[in-house]
Amino acid sequence: MRTQVGIIGGGPSGLLLSQLLHLQGIESVVLERKTQEYVLSRIRAGVLEAGTCDLLRKAKVGQNLDMVGDVHSGIDIVFNGEACNINFTRLTGGDTVTVYGQTEVTRDLYKAREAMNGVIEYSVDDVAIHDLHTTSPHISYKVDGQDKQLECDFVVGCDGYHGVSRQTIPHHQREEYESVYPFGWLGILSETPPVSDELIYAYHERGFALCSMRSPTLSRYYVQVDAGDKVEDWSDERFWDELKRRIPKQAADRLVTGPSIEKSIAPLRSFVCEPMRWQNLFLVGDAAHIVPPTGAKGLNLAASDVHYLYEAMLAYYQKGDKQGLENYSDQALSRVWKSERFAWSLTKLLHYFPEDGVFTNKMRQAEFDYLKSSQAAQSSFAESYVGLPY
Amino acid sequence: MRTQVGIIGGGPSGLLLSQLLHLQGIESVVLERKTQEYVLSRIRAGVLEAGTCDLLRKAKVGQNLDMVGDVHSGIDIVFNGEACNINFTRLTGGDTVTVYGQTEVTRDLYKAREAMNGVIEYSVDDVAIHDLHTTSPHISYKVDGQDKQLECDFVVGCDGYHGVSRQTIPHHQREEYESVYPFGWLGILSETPPVSDELIYAYHERGFALCSMRSPTLSRYYVQVDAGDKVEDWSDERFWDELKRRIPKQAADRLVTGPSIEKSIAPLRSFVCEPMRWQNLFLVGDAAHIVPPTGAKGLNLAASDVHYLYEAMLAYYQKGDKQGLENYSDQALSRVWKSERFAWSLTKLLHYFPEDGVFTNKMRQAEFDYLKSSQAAQSSFAESYVGLPY
Repeated sequence: MRTQVGIIGGGPSGLLLSQLLHLQGIESVVLERKTQEYVLSRIRAGVLEAGTCDLLRKAKVGQNLDMVGDVHSGIDIVFNGEACNINFTRLTGGDTVTVYGQTEVTRDLYKAREAMNGVIEYSVDDVAIHDLHTTSPHISYKVDGQDKQLECDFVVGCDGYHGVSRQTIPHHQREEYESVYPFGWLGILSETPPVSDELIYAYHERGFALCSMRSPTLSRYYVQVDAGDKVEDWSDERFWDELKRRIPKQAADRLVTGPSIEKSIAPLRSFVCEPMRWQNLFLVGDAAHIVPPTGAKGLNLAASDVHYLYEAMLAYYQKGDKQGLENYSDQALSRVWKSERFAWSLTKLLHYFPEDGVFTNKMRQAEFDYLKSSQAAQSSFAESYVGLPY
Repeated sequence: MRTQVGIIGGGPSGLLLSQLLHLQGIESVVLERKTQEYVLSRIRAGVLEAGTCDLLRKAKVGQNLDMVGDVHSGIDIVFNGEACNINFTRLTGGDTVTVYGQTEVTRDLYKAREAMNGVIEYSVDDVAIHDLHTTSPHISYKVDGQDKQLECDFVVGCDGYHGVSRQTIPHHQREEYESVYPFGWLGILSETPPVSDELIYAYHERGFALCSMRSPTLSRYYVQVDAGDKVEDWSDERFWDELKRRIPKQAADRLVTGPSIEKSIAPLRSFVCEPMRWQNLFLVGDAAHIVPPTGAKGLNLAASDVHYLYEAMLAYYQKGDKQGLENYSDQALSRVWKSERFAWSLTKLLHYFPEDGVFTNKMRQAEFDYLKSSQAAQSSFAESYVGLPY
């Protein structure tokens, strides 16, 4: 099989790139290790920057998003019970974020790719990338034990942190930067009305908590847990009790609890691989960088990578201009590092770190007090949360 | 001897409070451990917030400040050779800072106190504070071996970190928060024209450097040095060589060097004591809090303490209103913690920390890149640098 762009990974970034390229007459094939059902069963982020929404609309998958996506004009940050509302609309001159689950984004993209006869190979195995230094690299893989091969002009790695793409870059040709946090997020989904119209990010001496939502009848809540904790350690009852302790009393009093329909623990990690291009391989999203979920930057960063790479491929295929492809890594990384910084600093502000001394805890409190008191500090926070410009 | 307000410490904060109170008919006595000549020989900070300048004018010691003080509308932050100008005037709607040495502030205050026959006892020894729980506390001390006593309504501790005032508060009645940095600042004064009109704050892999000034013919430069370094380790030549390495090449090329007329190493520390009032004792400035010098907050924080305490004493003596005195500690500490945060975060941004790993160093770079790219981040920085409102 031959195509123009070989995309490894059928999550939202691979599908979005494939869809955008297709609309411009550039053909691609997506290789996915799992089945569509499996991909759609993963519960992930749910807060989309305005730039991400625009990109989905450009890819003609914005209909459902615009119909049921829940536009938010701010969030509440609560520090030991004291609240600070960050009003994005007022602070940024009109920007908002949209609550719309990553699962829904992915489902919309699958539908669009199918409607346009996009080629997606599922359940591929033993993926390996070859001849990246040439103008016709190829990807070898297996489906049902049968050897297959995809020839292409470029390989795009959208296959996440554990994928083969980044690992294909020789060790001495890449630098990896990583910070692992000494805790995780325990998240649950429950078919209950959200406790608040706005997301609530809460710091409490006992640890972080987040009240989020997917719809008026579906809530998503998180609490910071110890790194070693297992889902089995956390009954629904224990979860709700802990959450109530960490959020303001007013919110705890009106919180509607119910059985969890999903419950999982995610570790927190910051990670960046430089460069994001090596020979004719381009890394996108989690394949090149991981953010801790605080601030909801993961999917949005993958979208900005897709944006840069899409524009670069368009310039190449339509005008023969290679400059965008040459610049891709620097351009994407510049925005990646700023978002990594935001996610890192918000994680540090809102979590309990066992190793922190009393002075550092006082600095954390002072950071919140300053944020609460300063329009300039809130503006800086808001522009980072709604998403820096591409 | 009896007075209304007994002030321990004849540095700028004690003198300023004494002067302000005097202008409102409230009498005070200042006790100073050293001589006036000794106090004036200490080379300290040189950047005054607008609020500090206003307070000096209110104390009628603004004449020389307004004549020779050098108004600055911005600073340059340089990160590994890349510069970011922070223009205070534009970012804050007109605010500035004024370069005018602490030595000059102190000299102006001595002159004013003398002109008004203010009572200052020099070379006092064995200072002790008594009966703070009563409405007539007293201070015992010695001058030339002779026992003396000062009775007053209130005792104000302006006697710095090592002074007796804070130590008088029983250990279980105060909380102290401290962070010691693993390096110091080596500073020199030289009779050379400043390398730049604006202050230059520079981060370099080898460590921090600061180009400051006192006048068109007097420069003040600093470099970060190891905690164990001694002044003897640093010849003038070594200092200039190291400074040139850490500042942008353009600046290094035009730097005029010369013999140092003062050279000293200061350790860096963050420190806060809570509360700032205990019984009828009030702590002001370094007696209650220390900031690392990055951002020049030390003298300015002492001035805002003086402002709050002066207003509180005025309300008490003129209207019998005790509320301000009751609120003094909370009010002063609220601003203190925000300035501590700023000095701490600027210190962390601009210094080499031996313990930092590659990820933290990348976050430092991302912090600078974000600051350089964002008007909101610059506004937040600027409002903190020029001084938060009282």
